[in-house]
Amino acid sequence: MNDIILTHDHLDVQSTVDKVSSDDCGAVSVFLGTTRNHFKGKKVVQLDYECYENMAKKEMLKICEIMREKWPDIMHIAVHHRLGTVPIREGSILIAVSSPFRLSAMHATQYCIDSIKATVPIWKKEVYADGTISWKENSECTWKSNP
Amino acid sequence: MNDIILTHDHLDVQSTVDKVSSDDCGAVSVFLGTTRNHFKGKKVVQLDYECYENMAKKEMLKICEIMREKWPDIMHIAVHHRLGTVPIREGSILIAVSSPFRLSAMHATQYCIDSIKATVPIWKKEVYADGTISWKENSECTWKSNP
Repeated sequence: MNDIILTHDHLDVQSTVDKVSSDDCGAVSVFLGTTRNHFKGKKVVQLDYECYENMAKKEMLKICEIMREKWPDIMHIAVHHRLGTVPIREGSILIAVSSPFRLSAMHATQYCIDSIKATVPIWKKEVYADGTISWKENSECTWKSNP
Repeated sequence: MNDIILTHDHLDVQSTVDKVSSDDCGAVSVFLGTTRNHFKGKKVVQLDYECYENMAKKEMLKICEIMREKWPDIMHIAVHHRLGTVPIREGSILIAVSSPFRLSAMHATQYCIDSIKATVPIWKKEVYADGTISWKENSECTWKSNP
């Protein structure tokens, strides 16, 4: 199962882990990206995410396919991205991968978040405590619209 | 915070992620080891864990200290191990690590599970569908009592 979800709701780790868990698997690896309260010395109060939903989903599915080629024993993959406002400490991206043994799940999870940061068209607006904002593509992004 | 728990209760991923999350952090990495329904062609029905609790906790704290030396920006570490019977699909070990950036959390999580498998005195009994059982130290264990 490749469970790709873009949502304006809170990301729930437990139900996602339950979703990818399998009787055949001995490992679930999870990554949760959360809103941090600072960026390069500036106090952040929230992040807002926007994306091209169809394109983002297509890119995420492509990443899942590559993960399955690289680590063929992977069972289930969940990639849930929150859109809209994500307050401090709450999750914006949740990745969960199950496999019989732990190494493939853990390596695939890292590949997944690295690839999403590099290729998926999602923008974030950082809202600072001093009232200023900054729209940005991910700093690791390889396809920047404003290089 | 180093949150080391040995428990006979179900491991709860969500509350553990909430516990390690921090306003200062942008990443939580999680590993959940679960009971798999097979081992080398034999159908497994459950695992039973036993350990020297004091020694296991001491070893786990030692691993946390090494993690903090290797990845100084790590914020919180949770290592929860379930003892007693762990049915198929349920978690026996749950590791959660928070940090400002993702790489240290993810690398530290992998180091943590690898080290626990290698050094912490926890034994498991595999109970098979054919009625047989097998007590074993972890296959990766470096201190085997029966080499």
